[in-house]
Amino acid sequence: MPAGEYRQSSPEPDSFEEEGWVWGQIKAEARCDAEGEPALASYLYSTILSHSSLEGSLSFHLGNKLCSSTLLSTLLYDLFLNSFSTDTNIRSATVADLRAARYRDPACVSFSHCLLNYKGFLACQAHRVAHKLWTQSRRPLALALQSRISDVFAVDIHPAAKIGKGILFDHATGVVVGETAVIGNNVSILHHVTLGGTGKVGGDRHPKIGDGVLIGAGATILGNIKIGEGAKIGAGSVVLIDVPPRTTAVGNPARLVGGKEQPTKHEDVPGESMDHTSFISEWSDYII
Amino acid sequence: MPAGEYRQSSPEPDSFEEEGWVWGQIKAEARCDAEGEPALASYLYSTILSHSSLEGSLSFHLGNKLCSSTLLSTLLYDLFLNSFSTDTNIRSATVADLRAARYRDPACVSFSHCLLNYKGFLACQAHRVAHKLWTQSRRPLALALQSRISDVFAVDIHPAAKIGKGILFDHATGVVVGETAVIGNNVSILHHVTLGGTGKVGGDRHPKIGDGVLIGAGATILGNIKIGEGAKIGAGSVVLIDVPPRTTAVGNPARLVGGKEQPTKHEDVPGESMDHTSFISEWSDYII
Amino acid sequence: MPAGEYRQSSPEPDSFEEEGWVWGQIKAEARCDAEGEPALASYLYSTILSHSSLEGSLSFHLGNKLCSSTLLSTLLYDLFLNSFSTDTNIRSATVADLRAARYRDPACVSFSHCLLNYKGFLACQAHRVAHKLWTQSRRPLALALQSRISDVFAVDIHPAAKIGKGILFDHATGVVVGETAVIGNNVSILHHVTLGGTGKVGGDRHPKIGDGVLIGAGATILGNIKIGEGAKIGAGSVVLIDVPPRTTAVGNPARLVGGKEQPTKHEDVPGESMDHTSFISEWSDYII
Amino acid sequence: MPAGEYRQSSPEPDSFEEEGWVWGQIKAEARCDAEGEPALASYLYSTILSHSSLEGSLSFHLGNKLCSSTLLSTLLYDLFLNSFSTDTNIRSATVADLRAARYRDPACVSFSHCLLNYKGFLACQAHRVAHKLWTQSRRPLALALQSRISDVFAVDIHPAAKIGKGILFDHATGVVVGETAVIGNNVSILHHVTLGGTGKVGGDRHPKIGDGVLIGAGATILGNIKIGEGAKIGAGSVVLIDVPPRTTAVGNPARLVGGKEQPTKHEDVPGESMDHTSFISEWSDYII
Amino acid sequence: MPAGEYRQSSPEPDSFEEEGWVWGQIKAEARCDAEGEPALASYLYSTILSHSSLEGSLSFHLGNKLCSSTLLSTLLYDLFLNSFSTDTNIRSATVADLRAARYRDPACVSFSHCLLNYKGFLACQAHRVAHKLWTQSRRPLALALQSRISDVFAVDIHPAAKIGKGILFDHATGVVVGETAVIGNNVSILHHVTLGGTGKVGGDRHPKIGDGVLIGAGATILGNIKIGEGAKIGAGSVVLIDVPPRTTAVGNPARLVGGKEQPTKHEDVPGESMDHTSFISEWSDYII
Amino acid sequence: MPAGEYRQSSPEPDSFEEEGWVWGQIKAEARCDAEGEPALASYLYSTILSHSSLEGSLSFHLGNKLCSSTLLSTLLYDLFLNSFSTDTNIRSATVADLRAARYRDPACVSFSHCLLNYKGFLACQAHRVAHKLWTQSRRPLALALQSRISDVFAVDIHPAAKIGKGILFDHATGVVVGETAVIGNNVSILHHVTLGGTGKVGGDRHPKIGDGVLIGAGATILGNIKIGEGAKIGAGSVVLIDVPPRTTAVGNPARLVGGKEQPTKHEDVPGESMDHTSFISEWSDYII
Repeated sequence: MPAGEYRQSSPEPDSFEEEGWVWGQIKAEARCDAEGEPALASYLYSTILSHSSLEGSLSFHLGNKLCSSTLLSTLLYDLFLNSFSTDTNIRSATVADLRAARYRDPACVSFSHCLLNYKGFLACQAHRVAHKLWTQSRRPLALALQSRISDVFAVDIHPAAKIGKGILFDHATGVVVGETAVIGNNVSILHHVTLGGTGKVGGDRHPKIGDGVLIGAGATILGNIKIGEGAKIGAGSVVLIDVPPRTTAVGNPARLVGGKEQPTKHEDVPGESMDHTSFISEWSDYII
Repeated sequence: MPAGEYRQSSPEPDSFEEEGWVWGQIKAEARCDAEGEPALASYLYSTILSHSSLEGSLSFHLGNKLCSSTLLSTLLYDLFLNSFSTDTNIRSATVADLRAARYRDPACVSFSHCLLNYKGFLACQAHRVAHKLWTQSRRPLALALQSRISDVFAVDIHPAAKIGKGILFDHATGVVVGETAVIGNNVSILHHVTLGGTGKVGGDRHPKIGDGVLIGAGATILGNIKIGEGAKIGAGSVVLIDVPPRTTAVGNPARLVGGKEQPTKHEDVPGESMDHTSFISEWSDYII
Repeated sequence: MPAGEYRQSSPEPDSFEEEGWVWGQIKAEARCDAEGEPALASYLYSTILSHSSLEGSLSFHLGNKLCSSTLLSTLLYDLFLNSFSTDTNIRSATVADLRAARYRDPACVSFSHCLLNYKGFLACQAHRVAHKLWTQSRRPLALALQSRISDVFAVDIHPAAKIGKGILFDHATGVVVGETAVIGNNVSILHHVTLGGTGKVGGDRHPKIGDGVLIGAGATILGNIKIGEGAKIGAGSVVLIDVPPRTTAVGNPARLVGGKEQPTKHEDVPGESMDHTSFISEWSDYII
Repeated sequence: MPAGEYRQSSPEPDSFEEEGWVWGQIKAEARCDAEGEPALASYLYSTILSHSSLEGSLSFHLGNKLCSSTLLSTLLYDLFLNSFSTDTNIRSATVADLRAARYRDPACVSFSHCLLNYKGFLACQAHRVAHKLWTQSRRPLALALQSRISDVFAVDIHPAAKIGKGILFDHATGVVVGETAVIGNNVSILHHVTLGGTGKVGGDRHPKIGDGVLIGAGATILGNIKIGEGAKIGAGSVVLIDVPPRTTAVGNPARLVGGKEQPTKHEDVPGESMDHTSFISEWSDYII
Repeated sequence: MPAGEYRQSSPEPDSFEEEGWVWGQIKAEARCDAEGEPALASYLYSTILSHSSLEGSLSFHLGNKLCSSTLLSTLLYDLFLNSFSTDTNIRSATVADLRAARYRDPACVSFSHCLLNYKGFLACQAHRVAHKLWTQSRRPLALALQSRISDVFAVDIHPAAKIGKGILFDHATGVVVGETAVIGNNVSILHHVTLGGTGKVGGDRHPKIGDGVLIGAGATILGNIKIGEGAKIGAGSVVLIDVPPRTTAVGNPARLVGGKEQPTKHEDVPGESMDHTSFISEWSDYII
Repeated sequence: MPAGEYRQSSPEPDSFEEEGWVWGQIKAEARCDAEGEPALASYLYSTILSHSSLEGSLSFHLGNKLCSSTLLSTLLYDLFLNSFSTDTNIRSATVADLRAARYRDPACVSFSHCLLNYKGFLACQAHRVAHKLWTQSRRPLALALQSRISDVFAVDIHPAAKIGKGILFDHATGVVVGETAVIGNNVSILHHVTLGGTGKVGGDRHPKIGDGVLIGAGATILGNIKIGEGAKIGAGSVVLIDVPPRTTAVGNPARLVGGKEQPTKHEDVPGESMDHTSFISEWSDYII
């Protein structure tokens, strides 16, 4: 993404680098909402305004959302807080994910809206902790966390999957990401998307999603294939082989827009532009 | 919908107009079930038989289903009860939705079955309250409610979306309805259906679904397009441009059955007839 | 399924026949995990290690997962325990399902992993109890259970649906199985799969899935049609008519790989081989 | 109680008459506390600041405190709200009780402190509702409420007992009040106090406590006897026969201070002066 | 207890011997209450009417009352059900305790009232199970149960204490019974009663309470002393040495009514007559 | 307390000084109990064995015991953990209190038994945190905590009260300690004990309890009086004036054993010897 373009959509670009600025925004938004809506103030104080840091707030919120009668909120809170507090990589990814939702999704009215209400965001942050546990060989705990995320948010990401920064899982219900999948930076993935495997043999068997990719709702991408940087996968597509960078694959089975030999090239970072449908005119010969 | 046709599918048409009649049916059904199944009686008394009105019962049930450790059931109960009690439009829509499930879904054995067990029905009624809050500029609360509905029912409807009466969200898991979407009356929408947007620019960007439309499972409809009255969208279709009234669009990308120029016209209200598959013979040239 | 083939995929075939062996494995796995991960030990003791039988453990786990404020865990625990204890058919199906997940899904690291964390497995076992209740004419209770399973696991199986043994519902989110659907033995079904009906008329209206079938993610199969033994349905396919045994149907609308007249025949039990994508080379003429 | 005396102990006597003034104070106190203590703000918003009336706040608080897994908070909330909303007698008694705690107990720092934290106050208000139910012949519900109050607050008041206004149950743990007991206005009763019966025969068998009485900690008063207006019962006393107005009974068995024939008369309303110990000098001949 | 006397106080003596009769009464009472009070019906169905036996109902009720976030209701339910089902001694004691409350306490309107609402009854039955665990050398579990009983009911009975049949713990708050205490049959004990020890040396150090004893509210009985059969201990008494059979001890320190040498003898079974106060006339020389 | 005497009562005196040793004991005890009792293992892992320090374990246990639907366990856990972690005074007092229960109460079989099950111990530790909050001027939070302790443990200690180290609140139900009360070191206080005030005037109005005092069950001590070091207050006593060091006060009203002029002197630290009753022989002239 050209930095210039991004600057247009956010007033204080440098501040974005700082978790502090985002946390300050979140508290200000929550304070404003609490004043305007007393019925929600208790919720906003318990989840945001009573905390002194983003990681405290997020750990509390995830602990209370993901707990069950056999996995208590205090245990999960502790686990999340410890991971977020000690891992600046996770924290900067969290902030990048907040920015991704805020600036890519026109329905996202504020950072606090994303922090509190976006199951894709919450599932992704919980996954980041599960992934850390996985890499620390605390696999049973990582898998238990995956299961809770799948139960509560209907988002099923294997804890071994590697996920970059600035990710937007929009709506998120039904997303499935397999064990050896890799997702680059600044990727946007809509709901019902599957990054799946191809059989019962283990090993590297899931898709690798390049930076800046946009994957439309209900797309199914199967096997150890590459979706090139900045590629775009149309909604409902079924993709079983590599997609070159900055091209668009659509349909079931998926075809490249513009043809296999000379596929049309589009903007660099559809994962940020979120343009799902401008390729319709080219696709028009086989549409309605 | 022609009243005549509707009459055929329901034995006591005039009574349906009255919330009281439906509530009476629900209590009678629940009483019968409680007598036959003591293990369920406690559930039936707490959710239905201890209440003196449909809105009381529904508010109790939604409050207990959508509550969390940070949004208490008493708060939600109050919110729902207040909305249902003071808004006859919502109440009549609720009754129409109960009728829709009861008479369109052959698996729906009773009104109480729908009231208690249909997540699509429950998500829709909770949305009606969230929408009311949105129009009253109580947006943070409306968004919090949307988030709870999405967590609990895996149904994600933006509180700004406008939804008519007599709606059946069948099975409902994975339904996504965007901010500027509009759904007419007597529409039936299966699970995994998306009424989505087309990018990161705000404004009017979601589908408009006409009266009597039937949308099959897994269909993805994107952009500010019109699905004409009585149109039928086949399961798994990806629809990116307008669909004329009373025509059928199928496939990915979607095509009109009968062809673009002379699409076949079918029955008036597929949203009520629920005929998903009778167009197979025409579609057969490009099937198995 | 030829016994020979199965033997290759599992080291101790005879032991599999015995629930006791599997339960012994589960306890050993849980004990090992509890020792290695104190933070998870409480969870493992409450769900597995404090129980003296698989049915006790499973009843406890399902009771705590599916309970709500109006359907208490003790009531559900009792219901599950009674059903599992008195029905050896269900118990042997449960064990076969555990084996199915363990040996077909490379991400399944242990039996206990499946027992605790696989929502598809848990939903299926709860369905087996709901189905038993349905056949005993305890329908309101069966429907209430279906509703809880749909809320908690986002898996919606009508209690009247008949499901064989050795079933893998992988990932499982969004699966919908209709009232008159029948699923044979050793079937594998990925997430977002629909076995749906075709209208508002009751009667036999849902698919019949033969033994050993593999159904890919997001496939939609509608109507009272037969998917022959050992057939394979590609991800995202929309299938509206019969699929012959041991053939592969792909696409929307689905076509047979190799053509309608001479469809290519593949391995006998794709539901066990889990080969989702080897047909790509044949499908390649209409892909990217 | 002479109005004049009361005026001395409270700065704005006329305002006290109005529930509105007290509710305004409570909200102001809570707002101030919420600002000073973010960790408590969520609690204060949910219990006080999100409500528009004292009865709403109290109903919410009691519903959440007294609920159990088999008596849901929404049911109790409804029950309390309905009683408080429709019974101005109860409401004025509640306000008088708040004043009693605020002006008699030096440890009571604010009205909101009493409303939120005083189990004696909360138990008494819940009793007022249980008593109302009792008089409406809704006895099983009244008794269930008594049981919850006894479990949660360790205060056991039979729902038939009649209790006046301006009552302070200080500390309250262990208070027992029998079925035919009557407690007048402006009475103060410390913890562990028993107003008990005398055998297994029914009928009128419990004490009658006059206006303005003060009963010290651990006092046991048994049988259908009269404790005259303004009498004082020393801590730990066991009282089995009538105590004349404005006298002090102390000891086990209780004796009148000053002697049976010419008992010393003291201030008019010890229930308000809360003077537990000034009679020591007179009692001194049989003390340490 | 002479059978004749007992017959007078209960209309159908022979039936009392049968648990079945009592359970039948309980169900009939609950059914009647559920019909008359819909708001309570859910509670009555879940606790009584959905169960097929007294032990099922009691196990459910105790499991739900005594559970905590770290001791789940399902675990406790299992524990109670197993103990009650296999131990007819406990079951007959439970029935005798129900009869004790029903026929001795004039405020006890029905068996179901006692079963559901009497914390003394519930604490005693839970103790019976804790005691069984203690004798089976499952001491940590027995002590955990004691702790839960003390938290929930404010009744603290050491699991080693031996308690007979036909016990009424009336009101029960604050009762403390030490490790080596023994309580005979047909004993009635009011609230705040302590059967305590005398120091930090182990061994047999708590009171032995004979059959038919009545102990008034707040009485403190300390040390390895004998309270003879049919003795009566006045409310608030402090008893440090043996009390002969059928005599009354009152006061702090306790004295025998009628004098040490020739104490007045009273009725045989005050634990059943519940006469707390008829000795007043004799005691009158040192009262008020 | 002379160190020499203490050494006699505990086998490894030097180790007691170290929190680490006690924590090691607790873990060893819990491990042993978990192995012997699988039904309790989940409880023991969640409360003790999953934690790496005593303060973590205690914070978790208190957070889960004292939480309510409006004061979440995660908030309380955080609050407790922060206080215990940063205040070595509280931590050493906690360890001294564990030793007090373990070596003074013959029914206390292990440190873990006290940590998990003794409501007096738990209430006292929670009070220590409430007191710290009080001294930091976080009074509303301190008072909310007091209220929760009173609800859950039936122990009502004003957060301003000052409590020393090595305190045993045995059984603890019904203990009330007023705002200006002071309790020295190595004090043992039985249940139902009141350290109360004397009226409605604020200021210093509660008892001051010297080091090593033993206060028997149900004793009521009122007013700003001194209970001298090593004094003993008999069960059920009502004490309104000073008690000299190492003397025994008994009765209601309390008298000094041996007489006011020449009271009998006893052992130095009855709070540790726990001798409740050896003074009976001297008291015998006014007993039974």
